Amino acid sequence: MTSKDGYSWTKAQGLRAGVPSIGVIEPPSNVKSADTVYDVIVVGAGYCGLTAARDASLAGWTMAEADPSQLGLKVLLLEARDRIGGRSWSSNIDGYPYEMGGTWVFWGQANVWREIARYGMQDELEDALMQSSLAKLVNVDGCLGRKVVPFPHSGVLSPEARKYDHMSVADRLAEIKNDLTPNERLCAEAFVLLCSGGTLETTSFYEFLHWWALSGYSYEGCIDYLVKYKFRGGQSSFAIRFFREALASGNLTYAFNSPVATIQHGGSGVQITTRSGKIFQGAKMICAIPLNVLNDVTFDPPLAPGRKAAATTGHVNQCVKVHAEISDRDLRSFTGISYPHNGLIYGFGDGTTPAGNTHVVAFGGQHNHFHPEESVEHTMAAFQGFAPMNIERLVFHNWSKDEFAKGAWFFPAPGLISTHLKDLRARERNIVFACSDWALGWRSFIDGAIEEGARAAITVRADFAGRSKL
Amino acid sequence: MTSKDGYSWTKAQGLRAGVPSIGVIEPPSNVKSADTVYDVIVVGAGYCGLTAARDASLAGWTMAEADPSQLGLKVLLLEARDRIGGRSWSSNIDGYPYEMGGTWVFWGQANVWREIARYGMQDELEDALMQSSLAKLVNVDGCLGRKVVPFPHSGVLSPEARKYDHMSVADRLAEIKNDLTPNERLCAEAFVLLCSGGTLETTSFYEFLHWWALSGYSYEGCIDYLVKYKFRGGQSSFAIRFFREALASGNLTYAFNSPVATIQHGGSGVQITTRSGKIFQGAKMICAIPLNVLNDVTFDPPLAPGRKAAATTGHVNQCVKVHAEISDRDLRSFTGISYPHNGLIYGFGDGTTPAGNTHVVAFGGQHNHFHPEESVEHTMAAFQGFAPMNIERLVFHNWSKDEFAKGAWFFPAPGLISTHLKDLRARERNIVFACSDWALGWRSFIDGAIEEGARAAITVRADFAGRSKL
Repeated sequence: MTSKDGYSWTKAQGLRAGVPSIGVIEPPSNVKSADTVYDVIVVGAGYCGLTAARDASLAGWTMAEADPSQLGLKVLLLEARDRIGGRSWSSNIDGYPYEMGGTWVFWGQANVWREIARYGMQDELEDALMQSSLAKLVNVDGCLGRKVVPFPHSGVLSPEARKYDHMSVADRLAEIKNDLTPNERLCAEAFVLLCSGGTLETTSFYEFLHWWALSGYSYEGCIDYLVKYKFRGGQSSFAIRFFREALASGNLTYAFNSPVATIQHGGSGVQITTRSGKIFQGAKMICAIPLNVLNDVTFDPPLAPGRKAAATTGHVNQCVKVHAEISDRDLRSFTGISYPHNGLIYGFGDGTTPAGNTHVVAFGGQHNHFHPEESVEHTMAAFQGFAPMNIERLVFHNWSKDEFAKGAWFFPAPGLISTHLKDLRARERNIVFACSDWALGWRSFIDGAIEEGARAAITVRADFAGRSKL
Repeated sequence: MTSKDGYSWTKAQGLRAGVPSIGVIEPPSNVKSADTVYDVIVVGAGYCGLTAARDASLAGWTMAEADPSQLGLKVLLLEARDRIGGRSWSSNIDGYPYEMGGTWVFWGQANVWREIARYGMQDELEDALMQSSLAKLVNVDGCLGRKVVPFPHSGVLSPEARKYDHMSVADRLAEIKNDLTPNERLCAEAFVLLCSGGTLETTSFYEFLHWWALSGYSYEGCIDYLVKYKFRGGQSSFAIRFFREALASGNLTYAFNSPVATIQHGGSGVQITTRSGKIFQGAKMICAIPLNVLNDVTFDPPLAPGRKAAATTGHVNQCVKVHAEISDRDLRSFTGISYPHNGLIYGFGDGTTPAGNTHVVAFGGQHNHFHPEESVEHTMAAFQGFAPMNIERLVFHNWSKDEFAKGAWFFPAPGLISTHLKDLRARERNIVFACSDWALGWRSFIDGAIEEGARAAITVRADFAGRSKL
């Protein structure tokens, strides 16, 4: 199946929009009746929405305590795109999976590893590496950040943490400018920009410390946690398990290609109108719409002021991720930084395609931002910025122009987290807002998406059981 | 509610068998009819059995594909004891939870953290520390074990790994005896014995390397992964969530105080007879009985030879874990090693009781093994082996004499893993064997128990759907 998302380029075919993916669902909807009132409508079929839809559709404790006839909630999954996975999906071309977005997993990420173990996918993983050192950047307390972020899974920020959240990475680099050699500074900047997809000025220093703390306060930990394993079959081979399990519960209705226009939630339930005018009704709703597009949907009554303001601010990650299939075999284990002048900052050899070519993946961001499909020449030149290479194919997804994401993984500018994290996590009447963008632990990651989806499903199930929590 | 398990001693009351726990289930059974044929019978209500019972009782994909009338499997949970939790349970005395067995959790343990996040218990955790250094012991490859155990979640052992599995820690210490200072040697030995609960001769060196690899190949990682957090309300406050969620599905029947005598599985289903002669029938069975007591149950037809042999060998962990409430406030942050002559090897201050006293917990094992209830004097002397202290209360569970465990957490002697891990994980007809003792990842840990319970439930659910896997 081919998604409308993504691009590929080869010399023979030129630039083409749309690439194949096992995450495309066919038929795109199984809605039976327009009159159904669903127990819960989940908007968004990324990992958060998938987890929420699956966990809610599996029978819970509602039945014995609330309604014996009801075994598992009746769920409607609405998705704007033609595929599952949101900002994590893979395109399988000639038997090789190109990861268009979120890629890496590690066993230290509890939510994602629990699902990998549960689906028995431990042996479907590969690993890879990069290098650098960041101790000077994070050593704000003589303990490499341990005092400032002692417990990264808590949503409560200490006054010290708030101070660093109001500081950008550029501010922090200015503080320690006399301690860094020129090369150390370049390395630290390139690594931070790879994480944030923003600029040094728009990157919250606290959020970087939060990643660092989650990674065990060490660069070695960052490598393990951030880029250790990816799926041999691509991310879409993981996401499809969630979807299949939810579907087979018999409780899941879904509709892809269904961008939401309006959400009315003033009454006892929720009514959702799609852009094409279709109306769906649910008792509850789980809203997994990403932060940067939340204001593109009309809420009636309007979103709470704090959430609205956070969505107006948005997050800063405009990561440019491009795959190249190249015929140079000697670049298989290359890792390169090309900063500050190149369009792509970080690149590395990531595998060998079935044709025997080398697969290189490279990342840019707000810094020297560009749109790969607007100039294949510029994109190819950015790859040459690492090393001379002979490019046979390009594959990418332009996340900045993607109307359902408007950016890559969440990364906040200074102040957003300390001001709005609580607002973003609050429910509004019958809507539970769940998204990796405001997870407590691995915020921005697939793990955070699953954390949030599980929280949303258990919250809604508790509603039906008439409890505040399980 | 008071369990028959565990002991407490105070000067006023002397030694008493049985301590209170929120893990005791009352009434002890909800079996309605003797004629029911259950979809699956789960034997064992530790974390593995609880997870399996919960995951199987939640509706899965069976219904749509196999039998539309069936929403969630009908589960019978059989437990020999009067409580949930198996080798992890807590006794709450005067508002203070004493952990009688498994205690510590960390976010890097995927299965356990996924459940903590799902039940929203992130803010119900506490932390504590110990110290030492083990690099010389594990540095078999110049990379601190990374080459020998590159991927600790795989069940496939390389020839190098097999070699180290046939070596005891005593063998390894002999190899490096000229590299260790006397104090380094004592430290390494005490730490290994704390992990294994065996002796240096009966402790597989590979298994220790496996723990080390899972902990990120560093002592700092060991501290994080092995003793970082425990529950403010005790382990039983975690286990009870699994039980409640499973029960509320409406699909769970259970019977505590029901030790199993015979398991007949030659026909199309499984028939289980308890010691008191009660008979239960199921289409499938999940057997979460620990390795050291597996041979105390009669299987008809008998267990496969490899599994039988592994159970005859058993594991070596005879950990002695004793809590003391002491009036010495200056010992609150003490950590002590008393080795090789003392009955208890490791001890540390672990909290303050509501009475304002200090809580000290200490560990011994096969080395200088003793039974605390046989001599309160000997037990108190073993505490004095760390530092003079004024003991007001002792609380403990004698895991060695416990007929349903015959030991503490799994730790193998040399050879067991490389010879029998595959045997232990194999199913036999309609029985899926699931236990932390043969988990792939955090084997021996609560995390491994949940990993195994999830695997068992999904295996049985796949059976009902007529698939080999989801």
